[in-house]
Amino acid sequence: MLPGLAGAGVGGTMLAEIREQPAALRRMAEDAGEFAAVAAEARRRGVRHVRFVAHGTSDNAASYGVYALGLLPGWTAFRDSISLTVYYGARIDMRDSCVIALSQSGETPDVVEYVARARAGGAYTAAVSNDAGSALAVAAEAQLPLRAGPEHAIAATKTYTSQLAALALFAAHLAGEGERYADGILRVADLLDDALPELEARAAELATAFAFVGRMFVIGRGSDYATAREVSLKLLETCRVAAEPLTATDMVHGPVAALDAMFPVWAIVSDDEAVVPVGEAAARARQAGATVVASGTQAHAIESDSVLAVPRPPLPLLAPLLSVVPGQLFAWALAQAKGLDPDRPIGLSKITRAS
Amino acid sequence: MLPGLAGAGVGGTMLAEIREQPAALRRMAEDAGEFAAVAAEARRRGVRHVRFVAHGTSDNAASYGVYALGLLPGWTAFRDSISLTVYYGARIDMRDSCVIALSQSGETPDVVEYVARARAGGAYTAAVSNDAGSALAVAAEAQLPLRAGPEHAIAATKTYTSQLAALALFAAHLAGEGERYADGILRVADLLDDALPELEARAAELATAFAFVGRMFVIGRGSDYATAREVSLKLLETCRVAAEPLTATDMVHGPVAALDAMFPVWAIVSDDEAVVPVGEAAARARQAGATVVASGTQAHAIESDSVLAVPRPPLPLLAPLLSVVPGQLFAWALAQAKGLDPDRPIGLSKITRAS
Repeated sequence: MLPGLAGAGVGGTMLAEIREQPAALRRMAEDAGEFAAVAAEARRRGVRHVRFVAHGTSDNAASYGVYALGLLPGWTAFRDSISLTVYYGARIDMRDSCVIALSQSGETPDVVEYVARARAGGAYTAAVSNDAGSALAVAAEAQLPLRAGPEHAIAATKTYTSQLAALALFAAHLAGEGERYADGILRVADLLDDALPELEARAAELATAFAFVGRMFVIGRGSDYATAREVSLKLLETCRVAAEPLTATDMVHGPVAALDAMFPVWAIVSDDEAVVPVGEAAARARQAGATVVASGTQAHAIESDSVLAVPRPPLPLLAPLLSVVPGQLFAWALAQAKGLDPDRPIGLSKITRAS
Repeated sequence: MLPGLAGAGVGGTMLAEIREQPAALRRMAEDAGEFAAVAAEARRRGVRHVRFVAHGTSDNAASYGVYALGLLPGWTAFRDSISLTVYYGARIDMRDSCVIALSQSGETPDVVEYVARARAGGAYTAAVSNDAGSALAVAAEAQLPLRAGPEHAIAATKTYTSQLAALALFAAHLAGEGERYADGILRVADLLDDALPELEARAAELATAFAFVGRMFVIGRGSDYATAREVSLKLLETCRVAAEPLTATDMVHGPVAALDAMFPVWAIVSDDEAVVPVGEAAARARQAGATVVASGTQAHAIESDSVLAVPRPPLPLLAPLLSVVPGQLFAWALAQAKGLDPDRPIGLSKITRAS
């Protein structure tokens, strides 16, 4: 443990939960019987596509789920509009659908309501929640439990990585690769345990130089687009930075025009087809005068001003379980560099009371 | 025409195209035979869901399409991941799908490639493009032509409203309401012609007070979430403002923590279930010290600091064809207040050359 971080009272809850991620991942991978059962039932019912419903961090995890379902079993999956069904009363035929509803607390009212309507309309509904007794768990037909343990910090961290692991496991079971992915998640937990001390130190070091930054783009691609969304949300929630997630393509398509020296870019570089486009987008950002922080498993593969690399997991699809961590730590450290308490974001509470 | 805007050489192309929107909408509504034919063919083939593929402004129009399809015929529609199929090689069964690919130029390479693969995989593919001879038009089986006329400004405006009209017409034909919606679009064109002069004046007036703003949230809900996305993109492209689109719910769920007096919120208030949540989110923003600009058909229904209302169309689902216009005009005017040329955004070209 590092001096200066060890005894931190400010932000101590968020940091403790970041550090609990390997343990939470191990709990999930070691007891995943429900994942096999829900996958088998979805197959039995002839489900043709998966509808994810979630808000905030949970919705970011759903972005990852679209890739996990598309790449492992080759299923169509998408983040559905909650409001279309719940607030606008669209009557959509859901008999072909499996609904996967994600909510850390399991108490987000419009997610619960969507699940109730989808279930009544013939969808197969499953809840990914950290609380098996929640309203969501009761509304859904099946459970995919997170087992992340209680999350006290308002900025979710360990439930996010556990949600990614849950969606990877579900997709893997649909593709007959459940055991391989459970083993992969255990290996990710070990890699993360090893990497955390140095990542904490480097994130804290980097944050001091960003104390006056108010705007950022976070770019990612493929399954690490979810990471870009989640890192942006952490920066918004804990640091009051107007951070926007973008694909590399979309940044070059317009938003690049907004960049300048006080508008840095956080680039997540995955070990796949993303290296070239993310590298090109980062080069465009640097031409515009922006500082580029490279993160992810291939952070060293592009030109940047700072590097926060993570180890490569045995299965590339599991990279987002690692690549989000530097962003969590950076948000935690930057909040303090800005004089904010990451455990007490202004104006937020733990459950979205959507209306 | 207003003094000060009339002879504007700077930004004259973008302003001229904003003003052409009513004429472009009339051309589409008066000659929409293809829309009925493509809708009939999609029904004949037993399509079970619609996959939209697009980037940038066209992808914002697709957000609207999800609502149009969900509310009119009650179809499942979603913005699909292009990269999952094109760059990551996911092999997804598309035989149940209708693909609607949107690209102003029809030359966006990865959209063209997605359509080619989807068509080979059994999907019914239709191109929404402004150029009937484009690569996209050739790759797709069917055409839904925009007829917006050549668009010269880099920041798309008239092709966006024509894309909304195209998606509304397609959805309406699927629901047996094609004629009613064609009439509605003609009425929108008249309302817009009447409203433009005052909107231009008010947007220009408001922009001067925002000259030093660098960050904004744009909130919208339902079919006007597309409007929030498109207004954000215009602000990014033409004004270098880090504008982020959010639903009212999502803003309150986290990003509200980033707001302060120099971080205003643009709220689009629709004439539907959105009034209460958008009004509540705007109130939270004002508590945080942020200036709130209310736009949309029900702009007067919430508490705000400035109002840029648009007229109510005969069919509520057509409101986004009107509600985007104050945002287009504000972006055009704000660019000039910031000393930028809205016709020449730094670092952008008209076609996304995704790689």
